[in-house]
Amino acid sequence: MTNAEPLALQARRVAVLGAGSWGTTFGKVLADGGSDVAMWARRPELAREISQSKRNSDYLPGINLPRGLWASSRLPEVLDGAEQVYLSVPAQSLRENLRIVRELIPDGAVVVSLMKGVEKGTRARMSEVIRQELGIDSDRVAVVSGPNLALEIAKEWPTAAVVSSDSLDTATLVAMTSTNRYFRSYVNTDVIGTEFGGVLKNLIAVAIGIVDGVGYGENTKASIITRGLAEMTDFAVAYGAKAETLAGLAGLGDLIATCESSLSRNNTAGRLLGQGYSFSEVIKQMNQTAEGLSSVAPILELALAKNVEMPIVSQVAEVLAGTLAPRDIAPHLTTDDIPQGE
Amino acid sequence: MTNAEPLALQARRVAVLGAGSWGTTFGKVLADGGSDVAMWARRPELAREISQSKRNSDYLPGINLPRGLWASSRLPEVLDGAEQVYLSVPAQSLRENLRIVRELIPDGAVVVSLMKGVEKGTRARMSEVIRQELGIDSDRVAVVSGPNLALEIAKEWPTAAVVSSDSLDTATLVAMTSTNRYFRSYVNTDVIGTEFGGVLKNLIAVAIGIVDGVGYGENTKASIITRGLAEMTDFAVAYGAKAETLAGLAGLGDLIATCESSLSRNNTAGRLLGQGYSFSEVIKQMNQTAEGLSSVAPILELALAKNVEMPIVSQVAEVLAGTLAPRDIAPHLTTDDIPQGE
Repeated sequence: MTNAEPLALQARRVAVLGAGSWGTTFGKVLADGGSDVAMWARRPELAREISQSKRNSDYLPGINLPRGLWASSRLPEVLDGAEQVYLSVPAQSLRENLRIVRELIPDGAVVVSLMKGVEKGTRARMSEVIRQELGIDSDRVAVVSGPNLALEIAKEWPTAAVVSSDSLDTATLVAMTSTNRYFRSYVNTDVIGTEFGGVLKNLIAVAIGIVDGVGYGENTKASIITRGLAEMTDFAVAYGAKAETLAGLAGLGDLIATCESSLSRNNTAGRLLGQGYSFSEVIKQMNQTAEGLSSVAPILELALAKNVEMPIVSQVAEVLAGTLAPRDIAPHLTTDDIPQGE
Repeated sequence: MTNAEPLALQARRVAVLGAGSWGTTFGKVLADGGSDVAMWARRPELAREISQSKRNSDYLPGINLPRGLWASSRLPEVLDGAEQVYLSVPAQSLRENLRIVRELIPDGAVVVSLMKGVEKGTRARMSEVIRQELGIDSDRVAVVSGPNLALEIAKEWPTAAVVSSDSLDTATLVAMTSTNRYFRSYVNTDVIGTEFGGVLKNLIAVAIGIVDGVGYGENTKASIITRGLAEMTDFAVAYGAKAETLAGLAGLGDLIATCESSLSRNNTAGRLLGQGYSFSEVIKQMNQTAEGLSSVAPILELALAKNVEMPIVSQVAEVLAGTLAPRDIAPHLTTDDIPQGE
């Protein structure tokens, strides 16, 4: 711990793996909550910038990082003594990253997913991949979700989040660690609903981006969000989630924040589609992955397996395939309340 | 009917009372759905502009009104032969307006409220005022609600709405009349939920305006919308509404559209409060009434009567009273899921 700042005696030692905008922001949340935070950055120069300049200028320009946060590109140093390990790596690289860190995670440490996605091929949720690769009980795994646009939290604007674990004790421990003056964490034990909320909202955000790109207004977007939440809930409940989780911060809250943020990659990808760019052009044009685009196929496969209808997500898939014109995604997708008999 | 355009043989004759932006827009929706629409405008010069220039330049600048729509300032002319009468007058003047038109409404006509509000003093919903003053059965009364920003509909952007009546037949009749290529109406029989959704969302929109004015971001707003929907639902269900109505277009849909529209008067009023103006300064500064501000007191009285807690609306009331600083309206209002034990 050569880079460590002087610590208060009781500071809890936690590690964050991944120093993108969300990982770094969460590191700041944890440090501002009183923990001693070690971050793992793949690139040594980024680790150095974080530790020495207290900046991450590529991902969080203009944000000062707290004194109680340092970074290293050497995993053993970062994980040594960590009581809690927070993961914020790309969803599709989680499994390989876990294989690398498996032996380094201290016995008994709680492992927390900050990620929102399903693994292609296996269609596993992030907490499932963690349990499979680390071979640990579900009561040592937690997930964080909610209406959490990273840059707003980095600016210390008031935000609420949800921490979920099969174990209420674990969720509470993580929530207490992840609470500070501008960030408040609530807990639940519905991991399935909490994780699927974070995955599914990205797909609806793509649909919102598409209608934005076409040029429709707030009425249309509000209808799609409303109907989108209904199909998100149907899907998640079919997989064992509680409907109220989807109606809360990890479902509706996250959905609204993502759909209203012009910074969201899913939104941007949708907007380009709505403006008439093809799927392959959008992929080319965007530097970063839009998780929503990669989730469309696995989510529709999972929906089919449980006979859940997802009209909005299906139409996004058709736009991606080039078989539906973007302007035909409209609020008249499906019936709300009792359908009108025409 | 001296001002009437030539009509198709089968056109249904309907009347719209009130030629503000929403009344006029709804007149256009009905005319574009194939009805012969007569509008009542209080001012003869406005009636003339609508009939002759097919414009309502004060309320819907730049919008061309359809040929099948005309207006008059003479109520008997407008109401003569109307099979359906749509009301779009200020909520607080509904009762006096109904006393004037009572004898002119044709026998058997369906009366439809386009209004969102509760009457001060009596705390009655609009459909209750209609039934009281006209002495007609509830199966001849319907209400229209949903994510319906007038100007967007006038521009023919795709929009969905909800028509509610105790009678499914009446709701279906009105929904068929109120459906066209850009506007689709769905039906339900939960009048209480549909009307309260339209009232309560204005109060949450004021809260959103306040945090906007303070300068908070999408995370905070998404949390308030999420928690706001929960307290709207608690309130409406206590008064006999169905929870699913609030989760649909007349609740969540309308709430999102109103909260995201910078044109909403409730939003604007909140923003001014958030910027530090007092209640009386806001009232002075705004030309039109913000329905949300007048509804705060009656809604909190109704909530108290049923022991429903409404933390967001209560905090809006405190900001109005000057006893809470706008920046203290934060997402940490109440617990979502299981509260964290701190």
